[in-house]
Amino acid sequence: MESFVAKDRIDILRHWMEEKGLDAFIIPSSDPHMSEYVAPRWKTRAWFSGFTGSAGTLAVTMDKAGLWTDSRYFLQAEAQLAGSGIELMKMGFPDTPDCVKWVVDELSGHGKAGFSGELFSVNEAESMIRAFSASGLDTDMTSDPACLMENRPSVPLDKVELYDVKYSGENTFDKLERVRQAMMAAGTNALLLCALDEIAWVCNLRGTDVKCNPVFVSFMLLTEQHAVLFVEEEKLDAGVREYLDANGIGVCGYGKVYEELSRLKGLTVAIDPDKTNYNILQSLAGCEVKRVKSFVATMKAVRNDTEKAGLHEAMKRDGVALVRFLKWLEENVASCKVTEVSAAEQLHKFRAMGGDMFRGDSFDTIAGYADHAAIVHYCAKEDTAYTLRPEGMLLLDSGAQYLDGTTDVTRTIALGNVSEAEKLDYTLVLKGHIALARAKFPEGTRGTQLDVLARMPMWKRGANFYHGTGHGVGHYLCVHEGPQAIRMNEVPVALLPGMVVSDEPGIYRAGRHGVRIENLLLVEHDQTTEYGEFYGFETVTLCPYDTECMITSLLTDDERGWINSYHERLYELLSPMLAPEEAAWLRRKTERI
Amino acid sequence: MESFVAKDRIDILRHWMEEKGLDAFIIPSSDPHMSEYVAPRWKTRAWFSGFTGSAGTLAVTMDKAGLWTDSRYFLQAEAQLAGSGIELMKMGFPDTPDCVKWVVDELSGHGKAGFSGELFSVNEAESMIRAFSASGLDTDMTSDPACLMENRPSVPLDKVELYDVKYSGENTFDKLERVRQAMMAAGTNALLLCALDEIAWVCNLRGTDVKCNPVFVSFMLLTEQHAVLFVEEEKLDAGVREYLDANGIGVCGYGKVYEELSRLKGLTVAIDPDKTNYNILQSLAGCEVKRVKSFVATMKAVRNDTEKAGLHEAMKRDGVALVRFLKWLEENVASCKVTEVSAAEQLHKFRAMGGDMFRGDSFDTIAGYADHAAIVHYCAKEDTAYTLRPEGMLLLDSGAQYLDGTTDVTRTIALGNVSEAEKLDYTLVLKGHIALARAKFPEGTRGTQLDVLARMPMWKRGANFYHGTGHGVGHYLCVHEGPQAIRMNEVPVALLPGMVVSDEPGIYRAGRHGVRIENLLLVEHDQTTEYGEFYGFETVTLCPYDTECMITSLLTDDERGWINSYHERLYELLSPMLAPEEAAWLRRKTERI
Repeated sequence: MESFVAKDRIDILRHWMEEKGLDAFIIPSSDPHMSEYVAPRWKTRAWFSGFTGSAGTLAVTMDKAGLWTDSRYFLQAEAQLAGSGIELMKMGFPDTPDCVKWVVDELSGHGKAGFSGELFSVNEAESMIRAFSASGLDTDMTSDPACLMENRPSVPLDKVELYDVKYSGENTFDKLERVRQAMMAAGTNALLLCALDEIAWVCNLRGTDVKCNPVFVSFMLLTEQHAVLFVEEEKLDAGVREYLDANGIGVCGYGKVYEELSRLKGLTVAIDPDKTNYNILQSLAGCEVKRVKSFVATMKAVRNDTEKAGLHEAMKRDGVALVRFLKWLEENVASCKVTEVSAAEQLHKFRAMGGDMFRGDSFDTIAGYADHAAIVHYCAKEDTAYTLRPEGMLLLDSGAQYLDGTTDVTRTIALGNVSEAEKLDYTLVLKGHIALARAKFPEGTRGTQLDVLARMPMWKRGANFYHGTGHGVGHYLCVHEGPQAIRMNEVPVALLPGMVVSDEPGIYRAGRHGVRIENLLLVEHDQTTEYGEFYGFETVTLCPYDTECMITSLLTDDERGWINSYHERLYELLSPMLAPEEAAWLRRKTERI
Repeated sequence: MESFVAKDRIDILRHWMEEKGLDAFIIPSSDPHMSEYVAPRWKTRAWFSGFTGSAGTLAVTMDKAGLWTDSRYFLQAEAQLAGSGIELMKMGFPDTPDCVKWVVDELSGHGKAGFSGELFSVNEAESMIRAFSASGLDTDMTSDPACLMENRPSVPLDKVELYDVKYSGENTFDKLERVRQAMMAAGTNALLLCALDEIAWVCNLRGTDVKCNPVFVSFMLLTEQHAVLFVEEEKLDAGVREYLDANGIGVCGYGKVYEELSRLKGLTVAIDPDKTNYNILQSLAGCEVKRVKSFVATMKAVRNDTEKAGLHEAMKRDGVALVRFLKWLEENVASCKVTEVSAAEQLHKFRAMGGDMFRGDSFDTIAGYADHAAIVHYCAKEDTAYTLRPEGMLLLDSGAQYLDGTTDVTRTIALGNVSEAEKLDYTLVLKGHIALARAKFPEGTRGTQLDVLARMPMWKRGANFYHGTGHGVGHYLCVHEGPQAIRMNEVPVALLPGMVVSDEPGIYRAGRHGVRIENLLLVEHDQTTEYGEFYGFETVTLCPYDTECMITSLLTDDERGWINSYHERLYELLSPMLAPEEAAWLRRKTERI
């Protein structure tokens, strides 16, 4: 979208605000389910602002407009907002005002600020209401300018699919039983689920409503005896209907959720105030609402044995595709025209060749060559993509959705000669990546405690990165999921055996180069001692590191040993699935260092 | 105290509770200033319970009594509570009820629970009031059974001493100016200080009211124009009075603080709700109270250049005493009767020999031999102290108050042959200790983020310790001070250049042996890069490690290099202050490994 379009659309928004008597309006990037990635119907913030990144908030007053986003998107946002009159607000910088504070300051105590209660979580909305009220502003949560979008897409009507218990490892009846027990243990007799991946997990159903995220748009209400799925009925074929019926799950139209909830009386309903939109809370006025940390999220995050076995199979399949791609790239980079875009397409093809377990990418591939790799969430476009040359480094962050697991892997590889500066950064990132992978820790340890392991080697050389070190990954679900995380800021969630978390430190040198290395780790039991239970990680991703990028003299014996045994295991697992010349290539690439 | 005495005193307490109409009463270990160590007047909990540890809470109902303390004191509390009818409640264990919850459960919704509002912080008291009220209990905060103590000591009347600016590095006028600026920046025009070390720091005064802690009992009120010190007037000699007068600090009787505060009207008073007792808040009813995180604590924690230079001098003096002690012990352990108690006394003598800068110990020396070393806060007594033998390990945790700095150092040393198990634990602790000392980190890093560095080597072998890794240390003030800390649990305080923090991992094997190694670290600037400011630590403690306890094959080249250069620096700094035979001994002890 051209920025002058955004300028017009901000004008349209201001006219609408004037009609509604609103002096400021805030549009977030989420949908009514607090999703990170949303169906086109809810890309309101992108439509008005022109900024298409996955995370960003637009705030507009009668004479100013700002867009708040994080460091991953600074360069993209700067480009997309140019000429729009919308100021880029770089989150995480000490002098960047918080969006709500900015609105408060701009209105200086007079007027009405608006936002849609359907697009903010209970916690977010309440904090905004408090802030506005404390500064003498009125708040309106009833209007949504999404109605102004031309040809606004409908609620997605894609078919919902059954997710076989041979992949999920636990049938819906048992899941419902476990969830109900937790619901009652929390002192409630009902539970309202708003998060799409939680609903998909509980119901053993999947969908295609959101690109790369196999969820379907719905709400779910669970009581001790009943369950209702709020979903557009056209999405359900006879098989799914029958299945839902057999599991005691009734169906009600997606659009009727607020009305139906407002009819409920006398229940004690558990909601997670970070995962439930504010209008849902409002609808539950006839019930007692108990705010809890989602226990479904934790159940979902802890893999059962079937899911673990599936993940290992998915990783082998993904590893084969990655090896084929890396070999292909090495053989073609000098002789053929390969661009950042065509490289990503080729990787997709190799994954698709792996058979019908492959269901698509788990996110848009990041293929950043040379200085493009310094853009953390770079997304190559045909017209601006670099053509790869046999020199420097390519950062490749990609993932797949397989029926038996979701993958997410990053490798930074040499396409030819790389500089000492590139090698140094690569080696520092690798050292941190290995230190985290090798961690052991007692029961109760939070990811936040382990974060420093991935950063210390680069901190000693004065480098750092400003994204999280590790995120949870769903099981044929969203590539980003909670509650676990490995981050610098406090996340009060203990790592439990069966949880999956990424290990992805990076160093980004704007205008020069970027390095990120990422595997997925599975938390597993390590040992029991007089000090209790200790856990560790199993590295489940199977993809060779580029030894050409390493300064091996900076690696300790332990680090070299770890790389060698990882490469050995990887070769043993993948080579039987490869053609002889592919296996020979992999053998060379995984020689001991 | 014999436990049957405690039994009688609990009976006395119950009679008093009956008279007052109280069904439960809670006595903490603190004084009206939320001190960790208190003057004898406030050792109420020890008087009633018989448990003399520095941390513990007594709760008594008409038929039950419990004492809550942490793992440092489990063994001591068990011994001291035996036969008293008071149940030991081990804090930190999942099945130990919280003290307040225990009272709530015991009273099961009927009756009145009491505690002294003067002995709990605002945050603690309010949380208790909420919990009692939510369970239908009444709360009484007006009564204090301290009046039942026989021969209860008076408020200490020890003389207050001037603390020369040549040691403090900043005169009182400038400190008051800085504090007032912060006070106004917080949107307040008054500040009430309750913490004794904060008052001592602001006023450049010291006292001897609390053993090992050079503070004096007082409160302080600061407004834009005035300052009042609430202190017993007998404590002030003419010089101190004149000095206070010259700095515009008025004096009012210690006992008048509540009455005087209750007369204040119209001020906006800043208090730290974790450091101010609840009765103070109650007294401020005529003012607006603004709750802040103490900015005086942060100012105090950041050393100025004079304080840093003084600390370095204090460390040299302390290092000389430690070297003399270690040499003496090595030469006498086989031939003379040295006990845990007499060893501590001998160390005290060596420190006292260092001249009149020495003002006493900064805490009761922990000298734990063999399995006594497994008791984290062991305190040797004449009748139970071990006699040291030329085998096994001695853990020695001690510190001194010098006019120019406070020290705190732990060494675990071999008195003869040590087992492989002891050496392994020593080496794991040492590896963690070194990893933390060598850390570099960006501006904004919290101690919590670094904690894992000290634990990972032992976690990999299934060991752990349950105390913090590092605490702040005052400047000729309390040996434990905030706000910074290096702990597993989240402490949202960034480490700032000039802060001092201890580095003291340990491994404790009950009934066998214990290892702890502790240095003090000074946060200092490391480098400025495109990623911002990076900090690191300067190790300021000067005392050799016992290389006899190390399994050097488990140390990396970097670790060995760090130990060698630490020993080299230590030898260079201390040897000029030692007699030739002492220097020769130190040379041998610091040979390269």
